Amino acid sequence: MKINILLYDQVTALDVVGPYEVLARLPGAEVTFVAERAGPVVTDAGPLTLVATASLDEAGPADLVLVPGGYAPPLRPGPILDWLRAADAASTWTASVCVGSLILGAAGLLRGRRATSHWLTLDELTAYAAVPVAERVVFDGKYATGAGVSAGIDLALELVARIAAPEIAQSIQLGIEYDPAPPFEAGSPTKAPGPIVRFLRENRNLVVRL
Amino acid sequence: MKINILLYDQVTALDVVGPYEVLARLPGAEVTFVAERAGPVVTDAGPLTLVATASLDEAGPADLVLVPGGYAPPLRPGPILDWLRAADAASTWTASVCVGSLILGAAGLLRGRRATSHWLTLDELTAYAAVPVAERVVFDGKYATGAGVSAGIDLALELVARIAAPEIAQSIQLGIEYDPAPPFEAGSPTKAPGPIVRFLRENRNLVVRL
Repeated sequence: MKINILLYDQVTALDVVGPYEVLARLPGAEVTFVAERAGPVVTDAGPLTLVATASLDEAGPADLVLVPGGYAPPLRPGPILDWLRAADAASTWTASVCVGSLILGAAGLLRGRRATSHWLTLDELTAYAAVPVAERVVFDGKYATGAGVSAGIDLALELVARIAAPEIAQSIQLGIEYDPAPPFEAGSPTKAPGPIVRFLRENRNLVVRL
Repeated sequence: MKINILLYDQVTALDVVGPYEVLARLPGAEVTFVAERAGPVVTDAGPLTLVATASLDEAGPADLVLVPGGYAPPLRPGPILDWLRAADAASTWTASVCVGSLILGAAGLLRGRRATSHWLTLDELTAYAAVPVAERVVFDGKYATGAGVSAGIDLALELVARIAAPEIAQSIQLGIEYDPAPPFEAGSPTKAPGPIVRFLRENRNLVVRL
């Protein structure tokens, strides 16, 4: 099972590492981190650097292509969107986390498809003729999209259940002790206190760094 | 707020990046990734490489020191445990994720303290005179320990609530859309199907890679 995870400048680290920690445990998984150039890629929230193991040209086709979100997602025509279209043509599954779905949309892959995104950008999916769905994980055919940042863990477990078996997903879930217990009920705009939702709506740039 | 996050060979990526994604959003946070040598550090589940921004000698004191778990945690006397004792002497908070609590224990920091760890290693805390507590996040004075891998997100949100304010923690939680919805109830040994719990107990090495 070949898995290509796209990296780009100012990617969100947890969008990458949440699903990675699940998908890398798939029996037979071979994960490649793909970026315009192999080497260090700076993430958006601060000093963390991840390392791409292959350039766009070097990365071969993969069964699963995962596109994480980030502060400055590559939405304009260019090598990344070209690569993504080719990668999607060869994939069994194409997945995204957070505003990664906007990148899929910009590549023209979500026309008429149901998809999700970070709650602050969900409506922007319509610009790419996708159908926004306010759910944490949305499947439409081979396209699997997750909501904001941390949703990548839930997305990846559901992918593993479908790719391998529910028992494999459960084994991985227990291995990473994913029995979440957030100290607050504030993780979605329908649950968080109104002033906090408004604060983030009015200060979107602070979503990355308060 | 200076935050030092320890890295070492075969660290678990999500142990690092879960809390990082939360803590880096603390207003005024300055995160440093500290390892024996600055530069690339290979993680345990596959090809992901993180980058340490300071060596043990270069890293200054920090208000918060975070020790993630990994496949081969440094539990023997050596430079990492020496550094950790000095870092702890200067910190306001000392925290761990997963078997990171065993590293704190090996450094002699948890004697008589309540602490948690990955469910498979919880009992091993007694070897360091700590008191194992089967909870997801455990605070004892300045020591905050989290259970396995994914528990670092919950731990970090609770730390932010105590360091800054609950409203800041809630804003960060909403920013990373942490409204978890695991597709299975299998994240703890009390919830997962018995055969899966037994399988992992009997094949501990598979926790890292099935």
